[in-house]
Amino acid sequence: MSPIKVGLLGFGVVGSGTYSVLTRNAEEIARRAGRSIEIVRVATRTPAKAKSVFGEALPVDNDLAGLVSDPEIDIVIELIGGETLAREMVMLAIANGKHVVTANKALLARYGNEIFAAASKQGVMVAFEAAVAGGIPIIKAIREGLTANRIQWVAGIINGTTNFILSEMRQRGLPFETVLAEAQRLGYAEADPTFDIEGVDAAHKLTLLASLAFGIRVQFDKAYIEGIINLEQEDIVHAERLGYRIKLLGITKRRPDGIELRVHPALVPAQKLLANVEGAMNAVVVKGDAIGETLYYGAGAGAEPTASAVVADLVDVTRLHTTDPGHRVPHLAFQPNALADINILPISEIRTSYYLRFLVEDRPGVLADVTRILADKSISISAMVQEQKTEGAAVIIILTHEAREGDVNQAIHQIETLGFVHSSVTRIRMENLS
Amino acid sequence: MSPIKVGLLGFGVVGSGTYSVLTRNAEEIARRAGRSIEIVRVATRTPAKAKSVFGEALPVDNDLAGLVSDPEIDIVIELIGGETLAREMVMLAIANGKHVVTANKALLARYGNEIFAAASKQGVMVAFEAAVAGGIPIIKAIREGLTANRIQWVAGIINGTTNFILSEMRQRGLPFETVLAEAQRLGYAEADPTFDIEGVDAAHKLTLLASLAFGIRVQFDKAYIEGIINLEQEDIVHAERLGYRIKLLGITKRRPDGIELRVHPALVPAQKLLANVEGAMNAVVVKGDAIGETLYYGAGAGAEPTASAVVADLVDVTRLHTTDPGHRVPHLAFQPNALADINILPISEIRTSYYLRFLVEDRPGVLADVTRILADKSISISAMVQEQKTEGAAVIIILTHEAREGDVNQAIHQIETLGFVHSSVTRIRMENLS
Repeated sequence: MSPIKVGLLGFGVVGSGTYSVLTRNAEEIARRAGRSIEIVRVATRTPAKAKSVFGEALPVDNDLAGLVSDPEIDIVIELIGGETLAREMVMLAIANGKHVVTANKALLARYGNEIFAAASKQGVMVAFEAAVAGGIPIIKAIREGLTANRIQWVAGIINGTTNFILSEMRQRGLPFETVLAEAQRLGYAEADPTFDIEGVDAAHKLTLLASLAFGIRVQFDKAYIEGIINLEQEDIVHAERLGYRIKLLGITKRRPDGIELRVHPALVPAQKLLANVEGAMNAVVVKGDAIGETLYYGAGAGAEPTASAVVADLVDVTRLHTTDPGHRVPHLAFQPNALADINILPISEIRTSYYLRFLVEDRPGVLADVTRILADKSISISAMVQEQKTEGAAVIIILTHEAREGDVNQAIHQIETLGFVHSSVTRIRMENLS
Repeated sequence: MSPIKVGLLGFGVVGSGTYSVLTRNAEEIARRAGRSIEIVRVATRTPAKAKSVFGEALPVDNDLAGLVSDPEIDIVIELIGGETLAREMVMLAIANGKHVVTANKALLARYGNEIFAAASKQGVMVAFEAAVAGGIPIIKAIREGLTANRIQWVAGIINGTTNFILSEMRQRGLPFETVLAEAQRLGYAEADPTFDIEGVDAAHKLTLLASLAFGIRVQFDKAYIEGIINLEQEDIVHAERLGYRIKLLGITKRRPDGIELRVHPALVPAQKLLANVEGAMNAVVVKGDAIGETLYYGAGAGAEPTASAVVADLVDVTRLHTTDPGHRVPHLAFQPNALADINILPISEIRTSYYLRFLVEDRPGVLADVTRILADKSISISAMVQEQKTEGAAVIIILTHEAREGDVNQAIHQIETLGFVHSSVTRIRMENLS
């Protein structure tokens, strides 16, 4: 069979990684796909740089719009990143009847509904395995591997930069700023790390996972996002003593009254596999009613792990590009006409357990007042530790059972107004993952 | 679209679990598949029992051959188990142009080549996600999610019974026989546990994983199989002190001179996720050249986890049953005409590291003689512990670097003939999984 012709937009880390993997493993990939997959055209803003690395024979220029309208090309890979130009090129490729493979989570989290609708109308596929958790085939697992299940929740470490930082903070006892600087030096964090450390990148990915798990439209604007910049070394130490590790999690849960969609640091029981995912690695846990808990682990970023997912999508699209669209897996796991309109809960309405830490004057009666406030809000306590800090001052740490966040916030506000409480209350959510 | 019609052969644990999941989640599954999936006919040797649980309306009889030739049925699910009748029914279903979904690893490990060839000839699919690691979508991950990769090795805990036994032996310090009896009482082990504890079940599954990973024909008869029946509590304790856990692993590795295909207990570094998979859970690690290490974890057995995989296959087959076979994923991941003829290495030719334990007379010169024997076979030592056992006797534990098994066996034979060695040498393989 004749080779399938692919055009590649963008030739940065993932773009050149994709080119390398496709070239190196061409034979192995063709043995699987039943035909060769060839990158016949590359477009990047810096073609000279690409040629300097991959040789003069590389069919590269800077004509992005020309590539997406090239009649010779069957599949367009979008690895430009960003939202403006990428969106324009993806929409143009779809309008020209090209199938698209992309790793662009920001683009899909924001404009996925529009992009998938256009693709369905044109009868083309938009494949995006590389957009979530790098090489881990998590989209395939949820979209195809778990179709029997009513999915209950998904929780994952889906940002390698922040997981690297948290691992180093715990293992080496260093503060956030020091570790961030080191991560930047090692290339685990960008020069501008905002998207990672503030949780935005994880929220992009979580938004897509929620749509796949529950059959809802992409709703990034409803996600609650809290990063790791305010996380203190002290809480990592306390968490560890209590049998927990702090991870930046993306969590989406089905509740009777809506769906939780939230990214924030969380205490995870240390004996859970997810708590033991260290360094820049990613892992996603999916809980379904039939299968129970399943976990998927691997490299969430990097040239070749991400290329692994891009090429897997290419093989899938190669197999199905001439079929009737009815034979293909729907973009968001559920048929477009079967997407549900389920409410995303505001953060005040979520239910989870909490870790609370604050300083008090070390004298009788303190605990009585604090526990009374919690009891009045129906917040029950699962563990409490009081530790003398300095002369006359003590740290109190309270772990709660599951409670409504709005109630916990009110209780915190009341605790902070108590005369013998000498600090604000540090509050970190806990996820027992059960 | 009209419902797809499914016939179910066998109504034991997994059969009735499949019926339950399909019924309970019918709407959610149809929202994904784009049409309903209906079990219109069930055949089992005990139809009265099935009706007593699921009601008189259940369309069940004992006519298995009638079901597989029923012109109304599009897909046959084979959950009878065993090899003789199941093989006959699957071949008959294929001959009648039915697609087949099966959880039968023994059948496919022994007769897969014949079954897949017949299916390809008839243009039908034989889907078998449930045959390996229960609900974990590991077949989909390897066959579709990792197509970009040249896979280097696969290592997994793919038998829940033995993992439960090993977890209990470690956590509670109990001997094998005691824990086995308890596992039988709890239903984690069969009344006749031979297939599980001798490693045969794991070898069936490993055989399929090796074919998917490397594109080779199914070759169960070449697998090396060693179970856990001779494993001693003492070695579990020593392993733990040295920073390892003992797991029954299925391992298949690509080597320059062939493929390793082996099931046996192995020491795994305690900090690896795989070492922390406890109880009856399963997990499989796949190492690919582009993606690096990935891990897939979940319930490897049980009614609904296994049903989860059966139903996922049903949805896949439903999507693709009227397409041209060229659009489908090949049974063994690689196109049938692209399967390679690679040698399976005999166990004496594998290379790994080893844990050796034996008793010696506690006197000077002992270690010199032992280490000389190892050095003569080019076996280098990575760690050694000597511990006084009783008056005048000591236990020696040696961990080696990677060595050829044939050389290690010869060295062991020589060590056992030394005058001051007072026991046979206990040898357990080690897998560093890197």
